[in-house]
Amino acid sequence: MLTRFCCLFALAAISGISTVVTPACAQNAPMKSAEQEDAERIADLVLANHILADQGVVDGFGHISVRSAKNPNHYFISRSRAPALVSADDIMEYDLDDQPINPRGRTSYLERFIHSEIYKVRPDVQSIIHSHSPAVIPFGASDVPLRPISHMAGFLITVVPVFEIRDAGGNETDMLIRNKALGAALAQKLGNGTVVLMRGHGDTVVGNSIKTAVLHAIYTEVNAHLESDAIHLGGKITFLNEVEAAKIGEQNDRLVDRPWEIWRIEALSRAQQKQAQ
Amino acid sequence: MLTRFCCLFALAAISGISTVVTPACAQNAPMKSAEQEDAERIADLVLANHILADQGVVDGFGHISVRSAKNPNHYFISRSRAPALVSADDIMEYDLDDQPINPRGRTSYLERFIHSEIYKVRPDVQSIIHSHSPAVIPFGASDVPLRPISHMAGFLITVVPVFEIRDAGGNETDMLIRNKALGAALAQKLGNGTVVLMRGHGDTVVGNSIKTAVLHAIYTEVNAHLESDAIHLGGKITFLNEVEAAKIGEQNDRLVDRPWEIWRIEALSRAQQKQAQ
Amino acid sequence: MLTRFCCLFALAAISGISTVVTPACAQNAPMKSAEQEDAERIADLVLANHILADQGVVDGFGHISVRSAKNPNHYFISRSRAPALVSADDIMEYDLDDQPINPRGRTSYLERFIHSEIYKVRPDVQSIIHSHSPAVIPFGASDVPLRPISHMAGFLITVVPVFEIRDAGGNETDMLIRNKALGAALAQKLGNGTVVLMRGHGDTVVGNSIKTAVLHAIYTEVNAHLESDAIHLGGKITFLNEVEAAKIGEQNDRLVDRPWEIWRIEALSRAQQKQAQ
Amino acid sequence: MLTRFCCLFALAAISGISTVVTPACAQNAPMKSAEQEDAERIADLVLANHILADQGVVDGFGHISVRSAKNPNHYFISRSRAPALVSADDIMEYDLDDQPINPRGRTSYLERFIHSEIYKVRPDVQSIIHSHSPAVIPFGASDVPLRPISHMAGFLITVVPVFEIRDAGGNETDMLIRNKALGAALAQKLGNGTVVLMRGHGDTVVGNSIKTAVLHAIYTEVNAHLESDAIHLGGKITFLNEVEAAKIGEQNDRLVDRPWEIWRIEALSRAQQKQAQ
Repeated sequence: MLTRFCCLFALAAISGISTVVTPACAQNAPMKSAEQEDAERIADLVLANHILADQGVVDGFGHISVRSAKNPNHYFISRSRAPALVSADDIMEYDLDDQPINPRGRTSYLERFIHSEIYKVRPDVQSIIHSHSPAVIPFGASDVPLRPISHMAGFLITVVPVFEIRDAGGNETDMLIRNKALGAALAQKLGNGTVVLMRGHGDTVVGNSIKTAVLHAIYTEVNAHLESDAIHLGGKITFLNEVEAAKIGEQNDRLVDRPWEIWRIEALSRAQQKQAQ
Repeated sequence: MLTRFCCLFALAAISGISTVVTPACAQNAPMKSAEQEDAERIADLVLANHILADQGVVDGFGHISVRSAKNPNHYFISRSRAPALVSADDIMEYDLDDQPINPRGRTSYLERFIHSEIYKVRPDVQSIIHSHSPAVIPFGASDVPLRPISHMAGFLITVVPVFEIRDAGGNETDMLIRNKALGAALAQKLGNGTVVLMRGHGDTVVGNSIKTAVLHAIYTEVNAHLESDAIHLGGKITFLNEVEAAKIGEQNDRLVDRPWEIWRIEALSRAQQKQAQ
Repeated sequence: MLTRFCCLFALAAISGISTVVTPACAQNAPMKSAEQEDAERIADLVLANHILADQGVVDGFGHISVRSAKNPNHYFISRSRAPALVSADDIMEYDLDDQPINPRGRTSYLERFIHSEIYKVRPDVQSIIHSHSPAVIPFGASDVPLRPISHMAGFLITVVPVFEIRDAGGNETDMLIRNKALGAALAQKLGNGTVVLMRGHGDTVVGNSIKTAVLHAIYTEVNAHLESDAIHLGGKITFLNEVEAAKIGEQNDRLVDRPWEIWRIEALSRAQQKQAQ
Repeated sequence: MLTRFCCLFALAAISGISTVVTPACAQNAPMKSAEQEDAERIADLVLANHILADQGVVDGFGHISVRSAKNPNHYFISRSRAPALVSADDIMEYDLDDQPINPRGRTSYLERFIHSEIYKVRPDVQSIIHSHSPAVIPFGASDVPLRPISHMAGFLITVVPVFEIRDAGGNETDMLIRNKALGAALAQKLGNGTVVLMRGHGDTVVGNSIKTAVLHAIYTEVNAHLESDAIHLGGKITFLNEVEAAKIGEQNDRLVDRPWEIWRIEALSRAQQKQAQ
């Protein structure tokens, strides 16, 4: 466990965009191979699928990927399957042209281009989540901006961009990010941010690790709910300013193991109830 | 089970962008008798009752039917019972005059005319769901139209019609579709669409299979919730246009097995918890 | 089971206000003694406590009572305890002066006067529920009236009255119905209706049987939620008119066994999960 | 356990309308040592963590403390951990300078200054809860005041103060109460009240015992939800006046054992489901 954090920390340091700062980063921990690291990432990816379902960020749709440690131009993601049911055997490896390395007949997600195009332009990003996060969709369809109202969503910093697929794909798409051009346009709209809304569809959220991506996805949903509720009250709202948001965003990323511990247990508990089926 | 999936894939491949994915369509697969098909439809019907309850579309009321493969002028539906408790032994067969074939003393739903009258005029429809879908009822009672705001509800296409029972039955009904005339009026309001709202009551949703009817019912509820939340934000809303809605509606119907897999497991898991009672 | 319905039916017929009409009312069923009837009422009362908690009408507070069949000037209600935990041993008998018959040291609910004062003036009422029903409280505190928007709440008929304790008890009460005078004032506000809201507090709901009282309490909550959601949409709302409401209200009371069957199983299932504690 | 209840009853009887119901108050009951009392407080503190998570007041974040009976200048609180997972072994003791007495390598909550600074100036307070209570956050970010709309939240009395960290810490904080100065400013804003909102963050709630602090935290959340819903209705709202709120607030504190019994069982039931993980 200690080892893994060190690797992430090292990688974040190299990439220069260090929002991930782990507390207990042993310098003199035994080295871990990239193969070991990828095995751990795949295990976390399976768990993250279950957590996102258990926390209500995804339903039968939505997906999460992680970059390969061994080959940073590859990424791991499930075959086309409901997140709550994903197991290690469902995890496929893709290159950044979205070609599966060893598909074994497994079906790919139609929108895997979301993942590849962001990994190409954001070397700091290690994990990406695309979902139909229910409290977030209304903000994507409205001209009312999503902004950080809770300190738990400081990572939103200020106003979250909205991707309008008509700008990139015209007025007659099927709304899906089903090719590289649309994926690249989405990545461009995300820019250096953490979250991009997708009009009439959902959002895409990134992190420097699986855990922080999950933290960001869950609290984007929470923040959308809170902002919506605050708007309903009808008064004047005070949002986090840029400094407050940036500072607490970094702080919360460092504390990710605290909620992860309970999310993990709750997801495993729920999964166990389903096991008999 | 394998056989059926083969059929689905074959048909989807042939039709290009087929929305019609009926289970009884063997081309190269070993032939399945109409009796076998009906046995499978009844099994799916029982499961669909549990799924609709588990997903919050129905409570103690509401019902789902499926057309008979052997006799397309007959349909199957449960006796009058809460959907979560329906078992194969509760399933009754009716002709399109709503006469039970072999009632064995079982009580009929009062509103079975919803089903017969739609089956009469919509040969493409294989399954029908009537429910008091909670996020949908407010749209039926309000003059604010239900429209597709999420790509998961593309099947709504544009504005969903509202059935006002006073137009067909006068101002002194008991609100129920308790005869053929009211059923026919409801079917006429549905027209070629997928969903019709019923003022002060709920909605009726159709599909080309049990699975797609369930998909439509669940995401009609989801879309109503999302549109309501977007309206609360107070800004300008962008809905799906007609092409976007039609294209993604057809696409989602083809992906119905993905959410169905998790809905099925969740419904079975919940049912198991109740079994000891 | 058949026997019980007959008794209820007979009693309703005698009292002249027959909204409870049960389907299978055997005329020639073996007679049941009032003692047997009361034993069954107490069993249903325990179950109703669990159902109301399971369905979210009550939390740690709220209570349900039933009139005694043997002595219609007595009623049964739990000792002061959270409804989800009530067992047969908690059920106490009171006269209409709210004196416990055999307290055995058990503590009484402070607000039992709600029950006695309504039983005094409403011979048709067999069961009473007082709760802090969450979607209902806002209507009690607002001058926006609660009205039947869903056919499942036809029993509301038109506008639901609101009891303002300041009218009966002045501006310095503790908000509780803690004496006969306040109970009588509440009963007067209820009048011949089914539901009375209590400002800043909750509501009180009645029925001609435990089952119909529970049906009314659950769908008052549901209707409040639906009306609130419809108001949020911002358009014009069509409510049930008086005839529609009365007709479907009577119809739904006759169907109460359908939802009761699933409520019962869900409550027992939940209770079983807690049993190990 | 019996002993404690005797104390509560004795004190309530003596004080007439006492809000102060501290557990360590034996008069005629056999004396309990301060060590025994602290052991009981720690057991209740563990349980309270689970209850707050189970009731939705806290998620992976938030914390509850209790003052030491043996040394009123010390308090107990968990190490930095998700509340749902806290066990007796996680409980640490701090002095009012927030120095852990025997940390054994356990990590402290960053915001423990909330607790120490309130204990310093409020000798009546025995327990403190800090949370990101979801319905409360919108009121902290809005200029619409949180007020008692439900009699269950009479302890709010009138308008709840909002702590704006920019007033005490300037415009560039990370939003956290991470030092004594900020803790003292928060305690000052709380004043003699029961609840203080924290802009963009959550709230802090106090009580004269663990049980009453939990009661206050849960019903602050409930009241915020109800007030928000009442505002949505768009009409004129009647809130509790000062006398009504004070009287029912005191009354509810005396009844805390009723909801506590069910909260305890539900929390234990939920915890048991997780145990296998």
